Amino acid sequence: MSDATSIARRLAELGLVLPGVPAPVAAYVPAVRSRSTVYTSGQLPFVDGVLVATGKVGVGTGLIDPADAYQYARIAGLNALAALASAAGGLEHVARIVKLVGYVASDPDFTGQPGVVNGASELLRDVLGDVGIHARSAVGVTVLPMNSPVEIELVADLV
Amino acid sequence: MSDATSIARRLAELGLVLPGVPAPVAAYVPAVRSRSTVYTSGQLPFVDGVLVATGKVGVGTGLIDPADAYQYARIAGLNALAALASAAGGLEHVARIVKLVGYVASDPDFTGQPGVVNGASELLRDVLGDVGIHARSAVGVTVLPMNSPVEIELVADLV
Amino acid sequence: MSDATSIARRLAELGLVLPGVPAPVAAYVPAVRSRSTVYTSGQLPFVDGVLVATGKVGVGTGLIDPADAYQYARIAGLNALAALASAAGGLEHVARIVKLVGYVASDPDFTGQPGVVNGASELLRDVLGDVGIHARSAVGVTVLPMNSPVEIELVADLV
Repeated sequence: MSDATSIARRLAELGLVLPGVPAPVAAYVPAVRSRSTVYTSGQLPFVDGVLVATGKVGVGTGLIDPADAYQYARIAGLNALAALASAAGGLEHVARIVKLVGYVASDPDFTGQPGVVNGASELLRDVLGDVGIHARSAVGVTVLPMNSPVEIELVADLV
Repeated sequence: MSDATSIARRLAELGLVLPGVPAPVAAYVPAVRSRSTVYTSGQLPFVDGVLVATGKVGVGTGLIDPADAYQYARIAGLNALAALASAAGGLEHVARIVKLVGYVASDPDFTGQPGVVNGASELLRDVLGDVGIHARSAVGVTVLPMNSPVEIELVADLV
Repeated sequence: MSDATSIARRLAELGLVLPGVPAPVAAYVPAVRSRSTVYTSGQLPFVDGVLVATGKVGVGTGLIDPADAYQYARIAGLNALAALASAAGGLEHVARIVKLVGYVASDPDFTGQPGVVNGASELLRDVLGDVGIHARSAVGVTVLPMNSPVEIELVADLV
């Protein structure tokens, strides 16, 4: 685990603030704690309630540049951390991020999903240190909700 | 948890019957219990052994209407509950549905996956009450087994 | 569980050797152990560091034949077993494979994902016996990292 002070310091050094978690309006919630495990919902790159970009990732006209998509994965990862923190009672209670699944809305010719999902993976490492180093799957899907370019979900173990 | 009587009453009020779970014919099974957690296989909208619809969800000629797909997600969700019940020894042993993943076979222009997967999410809430409220990911994939429009998988915690 | 001797014998009978697990070079790792559960990263059909095939699975010119894809899923499954073994301290510590997700990079008209993913599922059964029989989801995605035809991830419970 990382203690609350060091996590707060890393977030500040990265210029990041954990966003608020929207109140659930549906038959599902942003994260569920089950004993010592937290499962988050798939998180999209919302900032202040607005998707920062829409479309599919790839190389070519009308597609989202992979370097931009990396940033969007980072934002989605930050939202996933916020959902996790809300269910865990704070990130200092996280013993380990055990799994991340990164879905990338992809042009069928784009095969660089790992580089995009690194935006989320590296954020977890930057904020949580070794606690944030996880197993991961990255896949390229046809389309995501609201035409989001990326979606990030986490499974975490609590202390 | 919900007790067996209230679950049976809700199912009856909804006009639903948990279907039988097909005997496994392959190297995998409908659900596995691991200590106090149950993982289901991805479930398709089968009724009496027949897929209720095939194709991709979207808006336009030759596509499955999203409102119809909502119903198919509900059926797949019911099959997932049946698989869960068989591994748990009854739904009254479920402490919480912790995660649902909803895969929607999607036209690349269709971005309403959340509304489709609500068919499964709302069923869980209707049958199980607060116990059924879960974390969730909804994604739009290219194609699903046997050309199914939807596939629903669950992770649940037992009491 | 299966004991180490019987697992070694089955692997030998199948002509298989668990491959080495590459050292992590990124913000994620091949597998994470969390208490008595191991989550693997999505594994691709690498042999000696090279993908054995690239492309999308389907029937027709320019597509990967499903029978070939079955073999690639088997190789990806072997890599997933290797990742699991490394985190578990040996496959003899596995109490049960609880979940497998098989992503198949699919032509939109190809609906035989279950037959492809059987390559991985049947490998687990062949190597681990009843311990290897799991819940499973098989989905058809647009494209996978490095243009891999398949990706296999596992969740396993340890003794």
